[in-house]
Amino acid sequence: MEETPTNGRGRIAAAVLGATGAVGQRFIQLLDQHPWFEVVALTGSERATGQKYGETCHWVLPDQMPEWARGLPILPTLPVIEGVRVVFSALPSAIAQEAEPAYALSGAFVCSNASAFRMEPDVPLLLPEVNPDHTGLIHLQRRNRNWKGCIVTNPNCTITGLTITLKALQESFGVQQAFIVSMQAISGAGYPGVPSMDILGNVIPFVQDEEGKMEWEPRKILGVMGNGSLEFADLEITAHANRVPVAEGHLICLSARFSNPGRIEEVSQALANYRGPDVSRDLPSAPKPVICVKDEPDRPQPRLDVMNGKGMTTVVGRIRPDPLFDYKMVILSHNTIRGAAGASIYNAELLVKQGFINL
Amino acid sequence: MEETPTNGRGRIAAAVLGATGAVGQRFIQLLDQHPWFEVVALTGSERATGQKYGETCHWVLPDQMPEWARGLPILPTLPVIEGVRVVFSALPSAIAQEAEPAYALSGAFVCSNASAFRMEPDVPLLLPEVNPDHTGLIHLQRRNRNWKGCIVTNPNCTITGLTITLKALQESFGVQQAFIVSMQAISGAGYPGVPSMDILGNVIPFVQDEEGKMEWEPRKILGVMGNGSLEFADLEITAHANRVPVAEGHLICLSARFSNPGRIEEVSQALANYRGPDVSRDLPSAPKPVICVKDEPDRPQPRLDVMNGKGMTTVVGRIRPDPLFDYKMVILSHNTIRGAAGASIYNAELLVKQGFINL
Amino acid sequence: MEETPTNGRGRIAAAVLGATGAVGQRFIQLLDQHPWFEVVALTGSERATGQKYGETCHWVLPDQMPEWARGLPILPTLPVIEGVRVVFSALPSAIAQEAEPAYALSGAFVCSNASAFRMEPDVPLLLPEVNPDHTGLIHLQRRNRNWKGCIVTNPNCTITGLTITLKALQESFGVQQAFIVSMQAISGAGYPGVPSMDILGNVIPFVQDEEGKMEWEPRKILGVMGNGSLEFADLEITAHANRVPVAEGHLICLSARFSNPGRIEEVSQALANYRGPDVSRDLPSAPKPVICVKDEPDRPQPRLDVMNGKGMTTVVGRIRPDPLFDYKMVILSHNTIRGAAGASIYNAELLVKQGFINL
Amino acid sequence: MEETPTNGRGRIAAAVLGATGAVGQRFIQLLDQHPWFEVVALTGSERATGQKYGETCHWVLPDQMPEWARGLPILPTLPVIEGVRVVFSALPSAIAQEAEPAYALSGAFVCSNASAFRMEPDVPLLLPEVNPDHTGLIHLQRRNRNWKGCIVTNPNCTITGLTITLKALQESFGVQQAFIVSMQAISGAGYPGVPSMDILGNVIPFVQDEEGKMEWEPRKILGVMGNGSLEFADLEITAHANRVPVAEGHLICLSARFSNPGRIEEVSQALANYRGPDVSRDLPSAPKPVICVKDEPDRPQPRLDVMNGKGMTTVVGRIRPDPLFDYKMVILSHNTIRGAAGASIYNAELLVKQGFINL
Repeated sequence: MEETPTNGRGRIAAAVLGATGAVGQRFIQLLDQHPWFEVVALTGSERATGQKYGETCHWVLPDQMPEWARGLPILPTLPVIEGVRVVFSALPSAIAQEAEPAYALSGAFVCSNASAFRMEPDVPLLLPEVNPDHTGLIHLQRRNRNWKGCIVTNPNCTITGLTITLKALQESFGVQQAFIVSMQAISGAGYPGVPSMDILGNVIPFVQDEEGKMEWEPRKILGVMGNGSLEFADLEITAHANRVPVAEGHLICLSARFSNPGRIEEVSQALANYRGPDVSRDLPSAPKPVICVKDEPDRPQPRLDVMNGKGMTTVVGRIRPDPLFDYKMVILSHNTIRGAAGASIYNAELLVKQGFINL
Repeated sequence: MEETPTNGRGRIAAAVLGATGAVGQRFIQLLDQHPWFEVVALTGSERATGQKYGETCHWVLPDQMPEWARGLPILPTLPVIEGVRVVFSALPSAIAQEAEPAYALSGAFVCSNASAFRMEPDVPLLLPEVNPDHTGLIHLQRRNRNWKGCIVTNPNCTITGLTITLKALQESFGVQQAFIVSMQAISGAGYPGVPSMDILGNVIPFVQDEEGKMEWEPRKILGVMGNGSLEFADLEITAHANRVPVAEGHLICLSARFSNPGRIEEVSQALANYRGPDVSRDLPSAPKPVICVKDEPDRPQPRLDVMNGKGMTTVVGRIRPDPLFDYKMVILSHNTIRGAAGASIYNAELLVKQGFINL
Repeated sequence: MEETPTNGRGRIAAAVLGATGAVGQRFIQLLDQHPWFEVVALTGSERATGQKYGETCHWVLPDQMPEWARGLPILPTLPVIEGVRVVFSALPSAIAQEAEPAYALSGAFVCSNASAFRMEPDVPLLLPEVNPDHTGLIHLQRRNRNWKGCIVTNPNCTITGLTITLKALQESFGVQQAFIVSMQAISGAGYPGVPSMDILGNVIPFVQDEEGKMEWEPRKILGVMGNGSLEFADLEITAHANRVPVAEGHLICLSARFSNPGRIEEVSQALANYRGPDVSRDLPSAPKPVICVKDEPDRPQPRLDVMNGKGMTTVVGRIRPDPLFDYKMVILSHNTIRGAAGASIYNAELLVKQGFINL
Repeated sequence: MEETPTNGRGRIAAAVLGATGAVGQRFIQLLDQHPWFEVVALTGSERATGQKYGETCHWVLPDQMPEWARGLPILPTLPVIEGVRVVFSALPSAIAQEAEPAYALSGAFVCSNASAFRMEPDVPLLLPEVNPDHTGLIHLQRRNRNWKGCIVTNPNCTITGLTITLKALQESFGVQQAFIVSMQAISGAGYPGVPSMDILGNVIPFVQDEEGKMEWEPRKILGVMGNGSLEFADLEITAHANRVPVAEGHLICLSARFSNPGRIEEVSQALANYRGPDVSRDLPSAPKPVICVKDEPDRPQPRLDVMNGKGMTTVVGRIRPDPLFDYKMVILSHNTIRGAAGASIYNAELLVKQGFINL
């Protein structure tokens, strides 16, 4: 970017709510040396409150904990912390239900990975490269709720890469029906999450509450804004969710029926050339490229492809005709970066770019 | 059985072709102390020929190699071994292409796990609990090919449990369309098979040549015999094949569209009550039960359920409505027992029961 | 056995304390159809009390839960359950500390897998094939504590196979020093136990409180009874404990220094021929053989060898000279069968055989 | 460095021999944009010769294959390729035996990861932070063999981190005896390497030909140069080698007996403060730090610590007293970076720094 919004004025003060969990740790890692946001406060459970982050957090990421985080004290999530403009929420849903509105009321911009408010009609379920205009719901949200700030959510990790793929396909061919099967990494269940005795050398063909989200959320994200409210996309989805012994990276097998199917080369090109709306590009966390199309017959694979585009790129492969629908393919997305912490950060960057958050 | 076909006369002499590989070892293990068949000859690759089985075979199964097998010499697969009535084939497809007809010509009953002849119109693709009448093709086969013996094949390991499930659903509701995604164990690729660097902590969304078989074979197996030939079932399938880091047990996610859908309890009962044709029951390897329906929300799982019915039972769970089709569910089948060596042995038992093989 | 102690009189009533955990489940599984003991009561945590076992227990073993267990109600561990002669304890150590003496006081024979009383000078740390005479401590224990029953413990799962091996070596060569490194299965940590994010594709070179037990317990077990008390073996051990992504089976690398070293063939024979004291043989859970010596260069391996002797046999391989000490070798033992539930049951059988428990 | 040896003159032309294997790929990856060396030629097996690297190489690393490598043709390893000054060898030992001398004869500096020449008395077994003066053997080597170039080898991946640790301990305390047990990653066996059926959920307590190297190589590396030849270190080692289901990173459990033991804090400091000889520092691949000492009770772990110092740092933890020897500890080293390709590159950098390779 030629001009960052913080030029000459320092970075925007931010807090991470629920900072000690697996997604909280990703927030800390990805916000380390972020050009626009500076983490000044961390919150955690009652048990951790009062301790320093470096003492109480069982850090599970390969990279080292940043030094600045090590010394920050763990604050309680409520009452609202003063002096932070942006709040990144990695809270459990039940706590998010209470805390996020309190922050939004106080004027903070809550960029949340929690599922608590995703289904609210006036809360954007946002992917910058798909539906940046859905931030228009913030106006409705403020009117409805008398908030000075707002809540913006990112979708479930499992459908993030899928929905970006569907958007690219939607623009060129229209997508009517989608059959999806996920093979999801263990990190999607947080820490301690999945017991090793359940998943070592095994597959669990079930993820609690997941399939409903997988069938509903893409319809909201792909919906159309009109008159300040949102019309859901007319798209039928059936989902099967599975847990597999993989550390990071959710795979999706997709069969899609199009309104207006093209040739296979056109499908591949529509994905590879998808850039997203202008406003979503050139942000610090923007994926480069948005979608990477693999030609090898056996890709994408989590081990080899999950860090494509620093974990923000959606990787698609095995595009081939489908005997029942039109095309089938495989989609990979990093579940704790593009699908969780990176998603919330990218959303916050969009809010800056769109002028919701100014300096 | 009230009367076994070997009463008073000893067991039927059998050979295992390709006995040193992973499926060959399963044959040895499952035929240990078989009431009807006695393994008297083993064949292997040129490298192994002349050595004793116990010296040359890198045994990869948890149970001990049976003592009788240890001392048997490895013979070349061709020329045809004299004096064996039943031949169990675990040969690679290219070698099966040449060797199996030679044995059939010589009068042997070849029960093959190889894919070489599965697509031939006069070769049964046989699952006793589904289509035992397809052995009627043996007459056609003998006329066409001037064979005294015959070749009978069992299907690809991945679709075995699926096809048994589809048969039970077919009888009650008619199945028109099926969307299937497999998560396949590494043992399905034989030994050495999948390199550990490719699959440890990973999923490979591709299995060579698998999806075509998955879309084609069930249509043959569920086909109808008439006038001595076979009419394929009118069933549309789309398949996605994946390899997962599981030792034994192929999982299938299935969404099915029925001609005449019933209530969910009826679906569950149709599966749990399925017994297969009379002739398939009470054979030594017959699964008990044919299908086990699990009620827990997170089953079947390979680690916990794969040995159900000594590895011969198909385990089905997570039966639930499908927003696009009618019902979705998860199917588990042991890939090297019900899906490979156990399948060929069960087929041989059917041939005895039907009188093709007599004493 | 020519005559079982229950002939004509039914089986001995037994309880399993802490029946819902991973070791508790192994007790249920191994006591299914046990010839001498009949489980008539199960206890669990406060949360589970009052529910039926089949409803509240998250069963993690591949075999089905026995039908008789399914319907038993979960009782509180205290107050003491009346009418049980033998108590199998899979309690956490802190609860065992309080509950086990209460049962012993009431006259029950407590065969415990807990570590709470292992270090008491008047409590046997018992392996029937090693030190069955240590039950002589029961007399001391009863005098000291005014108990009508007693507590008998089995050692930590990690050193069980090691100590059996050391005993066989001790008898022939004398063992002075042992360097041991364990690679322990995840099931050793119970359920939920080790989080999958910690161990998938990883090794944790640490097991809480384990190395101290590994260095201390063998010295007690190999100790000599004299005048009713126990003199510890004069044996120096240094231990390194590691957790590896294996489901069942603890491996030990051992380097041993002998007082009187023999030739390598003698070492191998001393192990292969070890039978244990007469009283330990022919019991229902006695390992057959006690030690299995493998000749292949790459064995024992958990996947292939852990179920040797129904999980009760110690498997030793790679016996070879050691440049610093005398010999090195690898030892495998099933941690939840020989190393936990099977150990307590075998101990109870010994108490019957020795006449402590009569009918 | 104040002045790199290539200032104003471009980089030194280098070849990678055996470029398509797992270690060959690491060479390509680590030499991408190397400041001193430019890869201009790649060699491979007969099967691959004539194809482009991007077409024939089954790339198994998570990062993308560099673009420049993609288009390079695969040449035969022999005859010697003209015009390369530095040759990085990832050849199988048998081929290295023939090819490496041919390159050395022609004047090339062969920095080899192969084991073929490690045991030769006139070939340095080199770790720059341990024994950079061993390059003095190059003079002897050239005299003995009439070579214009030379062969310099790096040690077996398993003992690299161990030997660096022993060196730091040696300097302060003297090391007399070491008991070592390795838990080695699958990538150490190359590709396809270990079959997944052998290692998934398993440990193999055996690595072909490994223990001999583990007991011998550290004695050469820690030896003392005098009068142009090498006196081996007086150090006794016993080794147990194991393969574990880990992708990258070899762990070692070490018990060490010192001549002159210090307090535990001194041991920790001796490791943490070890810098290596001056000449080994400030090279492009020099580890920063040489040794990282972890204080947490359960570290180092492969998943969390293997990329410390870009995979070049040795990570040591769990330093504690040893009941038999003096201290025990755990050592982690990246087997395909510090233990293989990175080692050869670091050695080549040392040769430049020492003036063996000039411009």
